[in-house]
Amino acid sequence: MDSLAFQPLSPVSFLERSALVYADRPAIVSEDRTFTYAEHWLRVRQLAGMLQGLGVGAGERVAVLAPNTHMQLESSTGVSAGRGVLVALNVRLQAGEIATILDHAGVSVLLVDSALEDVGRKAVDQAQVDPRVVVAGGDGRDEYEDMLAAADPVYVRVEDERSLLSLNYTSGTTGVPKGVMYHHRGAYLQALAMAYHAKLDLQTRYLWTLPAFHTNGWCFPWAVTAAGGVHVCLRAVVPKEVWHKLESESITHFCAAPTVLTSLAAAEEARPLEREVHALTGGAPPSPSLLRRMDELNIRVSHLYGLTETFGPAALCDWRPEWDQGTPDERAERLSRQGVGNVIAERVRVVDDNGDDVPADGDTLGQVAVRGNNVMLGYYREEEATRAAAPDGWFRTGDLGVMHPDGYVELRDRLKDIIISGGENISSIEVENVLTQHPAVQEAAVVGVPHDHWGEVPVAFVTTGGSESVSGDELIAFVRERLAHFKAPKSVVVGDLPKTSTGKIQKNVLRETARSASGGDSG
Amino acid sequence: MDSLAFQPLSPVSFLERSALVYADRPAIVSEDRTFTYAEHWLRVRQLAGMLQGLGVGAGERVAVLAPNTHMQLESSTGVSAGRGVLVALNVRLQAGEIATILDHAGVSVLLVDSALEDVGRKAVDQAQVDPRVVVAGGDGRDEYEDMLAAADPVYVRVEDERSLLSLNYTSGTTGVPKGVMYHHRGAYLQALAMAYHAKLDLQTRYLWTLPAFHTNGWCFPWAVTAAGGVHVCLRAVVPKEVWHKLESESITHFCAAPTVLTSLAAAEEARPLEREVHALTGGAPPSPSLLRRMDELNIRVSHLYGLTETFGPAALCDWRPEWDQGTPDERAERLSRQGVGNVIAERVRVVDDNGDDVPADGDTLGQVAVRGNNVMLGYYREEEATRAAAPDGWFRTGDLGVMHPDGYVELRDRLKDIIISGGENISSIEVENVLTQHPAVQEAAVVGVPHDHWGEVPVAFVTTGGSESVSGDELIAFVRERLAHFKAPKSVVVGDLPKTSTGKIQKNVLRETARSASGGDSG
Repeated sequence: MDSLAFQPLSPVSFLERSALVYADRPAIVSEDRTFTYAEHWLRVRQLAGMLQGLGVGAGERVAVLAPNTHMQLESSTGVSAGRGVLVALNVRLQAGEIATILDHAGVSVLLVDSALEDVGRKAVDQAQVDPRVVVAGGDGRDEYEDMLAAADPVYVRVEDERSLLSLNYTSGTTGVPKGVMYHHRGAYLQALAMAYHAKLDLQTRYLWTLPAFHTNGWCFPWAVTAAGGVHVCLRAVVPKEVWHKLESESITHFCAAPTVLTSLAAAEEARPLEREVHALTGGAPPSPSLLRRMDELNIRVSHLYGLTETFGPAALCDWRPEWDQGTPDERAERLSRQGVGNVIAERVRVVDDNGDDVPADGDTLGQVAVRGNNVMLGYYREEEATRAAAPDGWFRTGDLGVMHPDGYVELRDRLKDIIISGGENISSIEVENVLTQHPAVQEAAVVGVPHDHWGEVPVAFVTTGGSESVSGDELIAFVRERLAHFKAPKSVVVGDLPKTSTGKIQKNVLRETARSASGGDSG
Repeated sequence: MDSLAFQPLSPVSFLERSALVYADRPAIVSEDRTFTYAEHWLRVRQLAGMLQGLGVGAGERVAVLAPNTHMQLESSTGVSAGRGVLVALNVRLQAGEIATILDHAGVSVLLVDSALEDVGRKAVDQAQVDPRVVVAGGDGRDEYEDMLAAADPVYVRVEDERSLLSLNYTSGTTGVPKGVMYHHRGAYLQALAMAYHAKLDLQTRYLWTLPAFHTNGWCFPWAVTAAGGVHVCLRAVVPKEVWHKLESESITHFCAAPTVLTSLAAAEEARPLEREVHALTGGAPPSPSLLRRMDELNIRVSHLYGLTETFGPAALCDWRPEWDQGTPDERAERLSRQGVGNVIAERVRVVDDNGDDVPADGDTLGQVAVRGNNVMLGYYREEEATRAAAPDGWFRTGDLGVMHPDGYVELRDRLKDIIISGGENISSIEVENVLTQHPAVQEAAVVGVPHDHWGEVPVAFVTTGGSESVSGDELIAFVRERLAHFKAPKSVVVGDLPKTSTGKIQKNVLRETARSASGGDSG
């Protein structure tokens, strides 16, 4: 009697429920349009029907290239409602980078926002695959709207809850983006955990500052929907616009990297909000001065920690009531910790090279390791990389941290050389690979240096082949032509590279050099 | 790589997490003792070790007969931590009723509170099985404590999340108690749903007014633990004591049938609480006058609906912010509806005799039907009854209701003749079967009549065999000797029974008769 006591866990079912229970309540506010939950569910199923009409079968990949519009949110559930697999693309990527992903994922349909149509079409031209392109929005004919209106609603329930829901491409250390495989069960449970910890409910008005393409928006497309809250769309994270929406849309919650919070605090429009807004931040610990400023603005900050591989926030700095008593600095120090596994997560571990837990002494460094229902199935078509990332079934995050005696984890450094700038991962190796494509460059090493606004920015160190000569500006321009601009080094130092006896470049030494050089000049 | 992205869902993992994350925070306050989460988890694992020492293997049944003490709560998780199956017994049952359950469940260990030792031992004497009895508490030697202290902690993770967690015996319409089979996955998800909807968190101080033996306390043993809240034990639901605890223990939440709320409202100690307390009620809709009184006392009431077969509340009257604007009567009317499926539930249906949905017109009667992850696996060792209860995979609740246009369900009547008195089910057939055991009684019919305090009370109609004669008091005493006292009829009417042409007793006629007779005299 399986059907009696078993329903496969899928995030689609949250919208199915909310469409019944909150049918006439608003689900999405997108520019001048508002969709009720009944309308949202209908459009989602029409999208599923439209994709079926385009020949997308179960398990086939559908890519989306869009800012945080209603089309992006519709895709979050609509692709899987038809059993397709969602590939949400970073809007800051260059055409060549997008093409690589379209090919690796084997994408058959690309939904693209009209503002990104050019780069989308360029990517398709460069790709091996030949996806059908559907353009949404724009001033003229809205192809997406027309096709949606013509499509019959379709909903095919997933049978295996551990089947593929989405691919989230992330820059690994190798510089080749890897497709992180999300499963229905994981997204369902993670969405519940987010709804629970953020206390989302019918009164929630959620502002889409966090890109929905980023780890499927930390599963908030489904968490806010499960709660019956309102999604308020936002095309671009411009502080002025965010401040406007916070007030005009009576926002209760938003997610954002600390750099975004810093921008908000620095904006001309910044003034204390009448009602407290809950900001969930991650990607880097919020600084004490930032937290103090947020307090003044009536923005309460929670600190979450996770990776693309963990459906977003696997951990949170679960705030204990007794910590309210501390001084502002003590509170900030507490809140800078990455914390503990969320309510559906397995325990977050800090392990040594043998995979054994380090002592919980707040001092012994180890690598943060996670496992469980909110961890990816693996990297798409990269079995070896998957095995390497979880040699014993525990996913190694690449983050070095300590375990405090109270069970809270605090990051101390990154094991790998990923640079996190403005909440986005930059693979140093990917940038190095481009630099060494320049005829004048022999060797290149890229490291992150701290930056007040972006968290980190990349700085390059290169050696030139004897007779050749090249300027730093030339190399920066060279990278900007080939990669998303945020990945380009802020400065380039030409000279010898320090190496270990075995010939490995000593990035730690370069990092120190870059830090000293940038000094107070990091604004 | 299953272990990477998969952890079987089990409510035990909530305590495992809270013991790590909230180790030094209080978990249980039980009379003069307080246990931290680290201590609670240790004791739970020691209980698992103790049961292993007594030879309890995976899947073997362990019964508990106790009020809401720490032992009861320890059993809620400790039995399953050792892979045993929990059978929590109703403390109001008579020895013979308990013996029936011990036999049906095949219980090998009985944990009994010292206050219930007599009835427990009598039950064991009458049973075919011969469980080892362990007595907890009391003035002298505390066997449970001694054995716990001597036991090594054990924790065996469940492998199959749909394996048997507990058996919850409920009186069906047949009068023979049926063992409702709970699974780990269902209890995990239902506990998450309860934590989410009740907004349980680290600040939660939960008073155990709802018997933990009743549908495993609506999964609150695990929900409160998942949230890291404090369980405040309560041996008996005496209004004076409840009022004392609400204040002295700074209670934030409790669950109780409307009858309990009525007692609280009527108590001498009743006065408005300084901080709002959230009461979750179910078993019957709270009346407008009760809700008004609760408002005055600063007790906010949520209305939940479920059955033993649905892990407790499968539905809730999900309160919409706009309803706050209504008059007190409008609000009470809204809140009297059973509502919509909870966040992890499949939709609650109202179906006709063919299993098709009735129109959502707020008028067409049908039977309430449910299915999904928070529905039982079936009735233990009663395959036929399980099939009959869910002929098409949808469990028929036996409740008649209507579907409102906004998707909210409202009960109108009970299809079966279960009488709900003080939140407890009374099977009319079970009582009838006892009555007809009396030599003077030929036929018996028992119906429920509304009662201000208990919700309903049973009233019996009997015919006597020609020459025999018997008084109502004699028959009431006869039943009280054989069944829990609350099951005994409040009054007995001797006389002819109205019947249909096919000879079926017309209970609807009797119900009308009893109602008119009880009239204003229902206090």
